[in-house]
Amino acid sequence: MLYIFTNIIGSFVLDQKLQIIDQITFQSYSEFQEKKKAEEKLRKKHQKLDVLPEDRLPQVLSLFREKELLELFYKNDLAFSKEALKNSINEDHLIIQAIDNINELDKIINTLSKRLREWYSLHFPEIVEKIDSHEKFVEIILKKDREELMREFHIPETMGADFEKYHTQEMKLLAAEIIHLFNLRSEHEKYLKQLMSSYCPNILELAGTTIGAKLIELGRGLKHLAMLPASTIQLLGAEKALFRHLKTGSRSPKYGIIINHPLIQEAGKQDKGKMSRSLADKLSLCARLDYFHGELKAPEYRKELEKILH
Amino acid sequence: MLYIFTNIIGSFVLDQKLQIIDQITFQSYSEFQEKKKAEEKLRKKHQKLDVLPEDRLPQVLSLFREKELLELFYKNDLAFSKEALKNSINEDHLIIQAIDNINELDKIINTLSKRLREWYSLHFPEIVEKIDSHEKFVEIILKKDREELMREFHIPETMGADFEKYHTQEMKLLAAEIIHLFNLRSEHEKYLKQLMSSYCPNILELAGTTIGAKLIELGRGLKHLAMLPASTIQLLGAEKALFRHLKTGSRSPKYGIIINHPLIQEAGKQDKGKMSRSLADKLSLCARLDYFHGELKAPEYRKELEKILH
Repeated sequence: MLYIFTNIIGSFVLDQKLQIIDQITFQSYSEFQEKKKAEEKLRKKHQKLDVLPEDRLPQVLSLFREKELLELFYKNDLAFSKEALKNSINEDHLIIQAIDNINELDKIINTLSKRLREWYSLHFPEIVEKIDSHEKFVEIILKKDREELMREFHIPETMGADFEKYHTQEMKLLAAEIIHLFNLRSEHEKYLKQLMSSYCPNILELAGTTIGAKLIELGRGLKHLAMLPASTIQLLGAEKALFRHLKTGSRSPKYGIIINHPLIQEAGKQDKGKMSRSLADKLSLCARLDYFHGELKAPEYRKELEKILH
Repeated sequence: MLYIFTNIIGSFVLDQKLQIIDQITFQSYSEFQEKKKAEEKLRKKHQKLDVLPEDRLPQVLSLFREKELLELFYKNDLAFSKEALKNSINEDHLIIQAIDNINELDKIINTLSKRLREWYSLHFPEIVEKIDSHEKFVEIILKKDREELMREFHIPETMGADFEKYHTQEMKLLAAEIIHLFNLRSEHEKYLKQLMSSYCPNILELAGTTIGAKLIELGRGLKHLAMLPASTIQLLGAEKALFRHLKTGSRSPKYGIIINHPLIQEAGKQDKGKMSRSLADKLSLCARLDYFHGELKAPEYRKELEKILH
């Protein structure tokens, strides 16, 4: 009676006394990954190889205290761990990085736009108050001077100071930087969309880029998200309010990050609760479809949800 | 006996019964600013004009209830206020805007560099740990690929994942943005230096761009800074710690923003206190020299302070 035993060092054939009589050692991670092939080879060579009974395992392990095998064990352990780590990086990580970058860029664009508004209001306070959108504000002051803007926006006079050109030129440099940041943000969003369209097309379709990516981040990856009950998905992103509710008995939160979803935004006050439950249900289905590479059902789900609106 | 009386409406000649017998009204802010000229004209025309005694002022003011003059009063009041506001914007405001922008850009560059490091460490964690300076890190990953960097920095293997090029391309876009921000920051600093070199050359010379500008901000403008005692300048920027000290009796702060000054940084532990007092003294003199357009004495002061170091 012979036994076969495989670990990260190699595949071994052992006799009744548990001495190694044949072996194929793994010299690389890819050889380790194809350990079945090594086992088959040994099974062909030696007829009737039994799997090692569990109670004899401790005896076998003592074999590997031998210097040469021990060294190989440490070497492979380290190398294979590195390799496994390398291979563990997947779309989840890239999606999380991308959405974090986009959120950070949003904050930065907002801060710098406010700074530019404060600065520019020394020169032309009336236009700062007139234009609410940061993007539009930054664009027009980059392109046009005060005189042109006064004509275009019918502002007859200004309380702002008259500056030499090198001051307003400096303001325009900041404006140009903000435009640059807007462009990077939209480029990152395109990239994120591309990542998601092959990795989680259903989530992308139903939740959109930003909310979808945020759900993957809050759910700690697509796999874990797919395992979560819909009621948890509904509250992802509202953890603070939820813990406060559990601790102090304050009102329980009804929505997490999905509150920003257009379907919930558009729903009337009395429908918001229902919409958020139904949306979370469908998103949970989407996550499972995507994780198990199912078909694209999100457009159908969306139509069902839109019925709640009317 | 005739009286002369001037307000924002114009310059008036009044008779004994306080009726207006002659007048020059101001139609613009510049006419108002040159009110002395109007008064002189009237004084030439009418001999022996007396200044209106204060006790007759209420009677005179009732004259201006007349519709026509009242309208002119409101018109001029508004226009002149606007004009005064316009002219009140000075270098202080521009310096404060510039230093606030620079500080904000520092924070942003730091945040985005950390984000890039986290993102890039999925691909090449070893290089992220190897290079401490954000600026250098961003530059090299923008210019070189992982393989080149592994050779250059003698890193034989990496635990990072192998990505298709479009992922690393996206990381490089962020890196390029950070470089862009570094450039804007140094451009803004150049601009700030230019502003300060004519407005407050002594402060610029002794405190440097960043600390000097911050002192002007914390001192609420050069004029106010020049009026502050040296002991207050020493603590500008340490208001929180100072109030804590006054309230709770915690240790009193020894330095404000000047703690970042190279002369204090370089001073030995036992000299730091003395250096900060002396530096604040000299900075206070610099502020006064600059406010009253005095000569450039800062290089001399610096030499005196450097003696403390040795």
